[in-house]
Amino acid sequence: MYEGTFLCFAADHLPVVCFVWQIAMIILFGVFVRYDEESDAHWSEHKREKNITSDIENEFYYRYPSFQDVHVMIFVGFGFLMTFLKRYSFGGVGFNFLIAAFGLQWALLMQGWFHALDPADGQIKIGIENIINADFCVAGCLIAYGALLGKVSPVQLMVLTLFGIPLFAVEEYIILHVLHVRDAGGSMVIHTFGAYYGLTISWILYRPKLDQSKRLNGSGYHSDVFAMIGTLFLWMFWPSFNSAISDHGDGQHRAAINTYLALASSVLTTFAISSLSAKRGKLDMVHIQNATLAGGVAMGTAAEFMITPYGSLIVGFCCGIISTFGYLVITPFMEKYMKIQDTCGVHNLHAMPGVLGAVVGAITAATASESVYGHEGLVNTFDFKGKYAERTPATQGGFQAAGLCVALAFGIVGGAIVGFILRLPVWGDPSDDNCFDDEVYWEVSLISFVFYLFHIYAKRETVPYNTLKENLYIEI
Amino acid sequence: MYEGTFLCFAADHLPVVCFVWQIAMIILFGVFVRYDEESDAHWSEHKREKNITSDIENEFYYRYPSFQDVHVMIFVGFGFLMTFLKRYSFGGVGFNFLIAAFGLQWALLMQGWFHALDPADGQIKIGIENIINADFCVAGCLIAYGALLGKVSPVQLMVLTLFGIPLFAVEEYIILHVLHVRDAGGSMVIHTFGAYYGLTISWILYRPKLDQSKRLNGSGYHSDVFAMIGTLFLWMFWPSFNSAISDHGDGQHRAAINTYLALASSVLTTFAISSLSAKRGKLDMVHIQNATLAGGVAMGTAAEFMITPYGSLIVGFCCGIISTFGYLVITPFMEKYMKIQDTCGVHNLHAMPGVLGAVVGAITAATASESVYGHEGLVNTFDFKGKYAERTPATQGGFQAAGLCVALAFGIVGGAIVGFILRLPVWGDPSDDNCFDDEVYWEVSLISFVFYLFHIYAKRETVPYNTLKENLYIEI
Amino acid sequence: MYEGTFLCFAADHLPVVCFVWQIAMIILFGVFVRYDEESDAHWSEHKREKNITSDIENEFYYRYPSFQDVHVMIFVGFGFLMTFLKRYSFGGVGFNFLIAAFGLQWALLMQGWFHALDPADGQIKIGIENIINADFCVAGCLIAYGALLGKVSPVQLMVLTLFGIPLFAVEEYIILHVLHVRDAGGSMVIHTFGAYYGLTISWILYRPKLDQSKRLNGSGYHSDVFAMIGTLFLWMFWPSFNSAISDHGDGQHRAAINTYLALASSVLTTFAISSLSAKRGKLDMVHIQNATLAGGVAMGTAAEFMITPYGSLIVGFCCGIISTFGYLVITPFMEKYMKIQDTCGVHNLHAMPGVLGAVVGAITAATASESVYGHEGLVNTFDFKGKYAERTPATQGGFQAAGLCVALAFGIVGGAIVGFILRLPVWGDPSDDNCFDDEVYWEVSLISFVFYLFHIYAKRETVPYNTLKENLYIEI
Repeated sequence: MYEGTFLCFAADHLPVVCFVWQIAMIILFGVFVRYDEESDAHWSEHKREKNITSDIENEFYYRYPSFQDVHVMIFVGFGFLMTFLKRYSFGGVGFNFLIAAFGLQWALLMQGWFHALDPADGQIKIGIENIINADFCVAGCLIAYGALLGKVSPVQLMVLTLFGIPLFAVEEYIILHVLHVRDAGGSMVIHTFGAYYGLTISWILYRPKLDQSKRLNGSGYHSDVFAMIGTLFLWMFWPSFNSAISDHGDGQHRAAINTYLALASSVLTTFAISSLSAKRGKLDMVHIQNATLAGGVAMGTAAEFMITPYGSLIVGFCCGIISTFGYLVITPFMEKYMKIQDTCGVHNLHAMPGVLGAVVGAITAATASESVYGHEGLVNTFDFKGKYAERTPATQGGFQAAGLCVALAFGIVGGAIVGFILRLPVWGDPSDDNCFDDEVYWEVSLISFVFYLFHIYAKRETVPYNTLKENLYIEI
Repeated sequence: MYEGTFLCFAADHLPVVCFVWQIAMIILFGVFVRYDEESDAHWSEHKREKNITSDIENEFYYRYPSFQDVHVMIFVGFGFLMTFLKRYSFGGVGFNFLIAAFGLQWALLMQGWFHALDPADGQIKIGIENIINADFCVAGCLIAYGALLGKVSPVQLMVLTLFGIPLFAVEEYIILHVLHVRDAGGSMVIHTFGAYYGLTISWILYRPKLDQSKRLNGSGYHSDVFAMIGTLFLWMFWPSFNSAISDHGDGQHRAAINTYLALASSVLTTFAISSLSAKRGKLDMVHIQNATLAGGVAMGTAAEFMITPYGSLIVGFCCGIISTFGYLVITPFMEKYMKIQDTCGVHNLHAMPGVLGAVVGAITAATASESVYGHEGLVNTFDFKGKYAERTPATQGGFQAAGLCVALAFGIVGGAIVGFILRLPVWGDPSDDNCFDDEVYWEVSLISFVFYLFHIYAKRETVPYNTLKENLYIEI
Repeated sequence: MYEGTFLCFAADHLPVVCFVWQIAMIILFGVFVRYDEESDAHWSEHKREKNITSDIENEFYYRYPSFQDVHVMIFVGFGFLMTFLKRYSFGGVGFNFLIAAFGLQWALLMQGWFHALDPADGQIKIGIENIINADFCVAGCLIAYGALLGKVSPVQLMVLTLFGIPLFAVEEYIILHVLHVRDAGGSMVIHTFGAYYGLTISWILYRPKLDQSKRLNGSGYHSDVFAMIGTLFLWMFWPSFNSAISDHGDGQHRAAINTYLALASSVLTTFAISSLSAKRGKLDMVHIQNATLAGGVAMGTAAEFMITPYGSLIVGFCCGIISTFGYLVITPFMEKYMKIQDTCGVHNLHAMPGVLGAVVGAITAATASESVYGHEGLVNTFDFKGKYAERTPATQGGFQAAGLCVALAFGIVGGAIVGFILRLPVWGDPSDDNCFDDEVYWEVSLISFVFYLFHIYAKRETVPYNTLKENLYIEI
């Protein structure tokens, strides 16, 4: 009865939320959003004015392949990574799809007001870089979803996204613009923020009786293979993620190579720790699906720096260990003693590697020198131009560290506020014994025949041979 | 017996069809197809003649990333979208693979004769743009396959493709060249044509007793997750589809952004209507798998125009609603009263959004102005050059509308002709109670043990414990 | 007991191997590997020195989209292609991930010493082309894994990779540099070498009692669909594989088109032979998953040559036939009479098409002429520069054929040596009745309920209706 009431709320709310918020997006886009000079039909005039000799110089050609890789990470990567639960695959990939599609519109607006406002006419001018950044912004909310997977309603996820995007945009503005911190792949801005945002919400929404759903809180054979699709697309395209908005030329080139190396290194240490920890050396798919990615997270800040190839390998090496160790020890500890239920283990995949990545970035920045970067290289990499022309690498390292504190503060404080909002009893969240179950929010075709068959045998009825054969073929 | 005869025909025909048609392709390619100047080894001389300063100006670098995205849409996108049926996943992805591989060769020829014939030597000169267009042409036939999924034999699909490709090529020639209509993403040329082509064939091949197969005409839990792979790759790469052959620079840039926005908007309204329509607000995977894509279809014509970001959102908003509504109301209506059995609901995903996209394109074109596009921008976007230099936007709008009529006419008339050909009783189509069943055309490893086990119990035999345990592990 | 001992070895070895080898990589990278001039922060100075006018001329923009496609082939393509076994999907995709991640680091070093050593400071300078080549090098070992799938331990696979990478690097150096052979897509260097390397190892590790595992040596319905993900990503991105490191401009452009055509042609002949060979014309997923790719393998050498579009179709036509025929006849023959157990049929997919590709390449090279290529085109395509300025196409054809012999010799001799190493009884390989079973190396959540249920019925116990219903939903 009680549950029924909640579900009715959910049934009422989701269509209204989707409709009203989408209409709001349309109105706000109508007032505020226009094409930038590279996507506007005046491009040919702009090109002539700026003495750009060829269409290939359009920003589109520098960044579109990376954008598409990032886009795959957001929708297939995050989406399929969350299909690992045996009966929550629809919710994993489906709600990921919903909130990412809403979030990217909202992010274009929120980030636009902070980063892409044209002072001439008060409008946001969007191009390829904006839509990459919108995907990045969405990633923060999807990471938070990972901590809550299976325990919240779609309306709660929409609310999480509604507040998460502006929090992200403000945090990003402070870190990248006010503090002038470099964080091209978002170790701080995306991963640290997103993970602590989700973990804090999960802490506030703590369910003491969640073990009533424990029969469904695990993977099945095929759902584990589905999750590997997510893992691999994240793993393969992470070099594009970390290089998508870094500097043209050597910046993008170096960011891709560093990330590629760190990820490779993570894989080996993940396999090592996973095998070491289990009896008879058996590997655990949870580790392989997640901890192998930690190297990418941890290179989010330093990827574009001259961290050197072996530096990248060292970062990946450490992260594979830390992250797998987190799944073995820290997640159970957090659940038991800190009342934080972290379904996907985002603390291990995003929080710890994100913080480590920020520290690595600060150190790498602080130790940068003209002998390694060249004078121009140093200025370009850290953007020591304009009012930052006098900043030294050492100072930059300090600001990088300050950026981490900002990301942590926004994640935890923002998560606390949003967590309390999500505790209001109006959002249609599933009851404790209904968590991790697609049946609550989706039409699921039950495999009813097998049951039917047992039922028949229980009654000792007889069924014609061919009926049995036919139905078994259909159902299983 | 009767069925057996048909299957023998199928067994006879498929190898012959594949061999003979492939040999025909080789001969025709031998006579007609050569490399164009950008893929020929004379490129370095060509480059010097045309004062092209860098290899990066080769068309390959403008379009190859988009081509690969389109290629993924054709084979993984369409292929996996059609794996949703619980026992027709092999047929969905496998026959899609077969007819696309044949169709793209045939399309290079047919489109080549109309668009890429070198008058100097009567040969077709192919490059990257031709292979993108061949993939587009194939998409028309794959859409038609969607309406027929599970009800036709592979030989029928090959015949459908054999006729579908030239119909497409002629239709495209009339629309794009004779009428000088703009349709970069093919709302008319691809989606409207393809959908009505398939629906008309399905109407002619109407099976009154199809409910004999209704036990198999539905999805299973894992097949729905497989279908989401198709959905997401289509959704993510649709911006590449609509921008793949649009103008260099701002044209490609704008087409990608507009499509990205329309698709995001479709997702929210699809979730809204799906939830609104079901008891207890439950979502239906069929809607999420399909209607979320409608915004991409509907931006096929207008994506490269200055439709504005909010205009794109509005188009996506409407299409998500219309398309989901189609699945709820129109598909059952068409099946019951119009005798059109549309397995994948292509009427909802391609026909209606395609027509809407054509109308949106016509209106957007008709209202184009120099104040919005700039003079050069207007000329470039609508290609008002040469003998079309005097055409006004208003006139262009009229021609755009005329283009829609051509697409509809080719789809319906072509579909009628091909439908009658496919009704000839020689193609090995499955009997009414064998539809949607991979067993007819594929070696399927039956899950035989479970049956065997029940059989044993039916006989009250005893089986050793370990045999049971072992076999269960193997079979399920 | 005996098995237990082996497993303990495996349990001991895998973590040690992963840790020690990864640490070795870090040390070697620390000593030897640095960024090249296009990925180093000195790029802006380098650009000025070389009069490079734009960042878009950075090699990154020429090759990064192709690199990402190749990367997808290595991890998702090869990985998912090997998920086809019903109970070895974790091992297929998981161990592929492990050895590829190790192999690419090791390849950067080994190939670097041969191809990218900076004589000025004795260091390897890496950029985008090196990481593509590292992925290529890894492909050789993954092909070898295909022959051994399900029969070896992860430690054995690491050893196979440890030796395979340097063998590949030396072989590649001899073929490409000493003999100055062209092989952009690696028909010889990658496919022929990799396949014979794996087959020879499989021959030495012959298991006479492998049929003790035959219950698991086959596919299931869903595992076959998973494998199609691998097939399609390999198929779609093979044009990028063959063009990834070919010449800028027309070279990459032509290689992509030729591969695209050969692959399409393979699909039709594969379907034809598969249907022709089975009773009632039924298709076999094994053929569709593998032989459709043979055209890509066989174009590995000639893709960048002026083989003409119809020449590409002919190559694909033949390879589809040969490869499917191999699955039908040669694999069973090899297993029965030659004691070579080839799980994935790499002999059919890589060895035969690879050899054919080398022969096609040699013939195409030998018949090249200035009338077809133009003078500059001929010089560029075959790199007839420096000390090779006097080489004629006919001579080049001879060297191409010599290259094939080198690849064969390295594959067979290398495989023999490594095979004997892998026969040492210390590597924890599975016993004959445990092959093709994920349970040996992975934590697998057994579908235990169905068994439990049968057990209950066997005892004629009664279970409450709701318990049954609930549990069935969870388990299946």
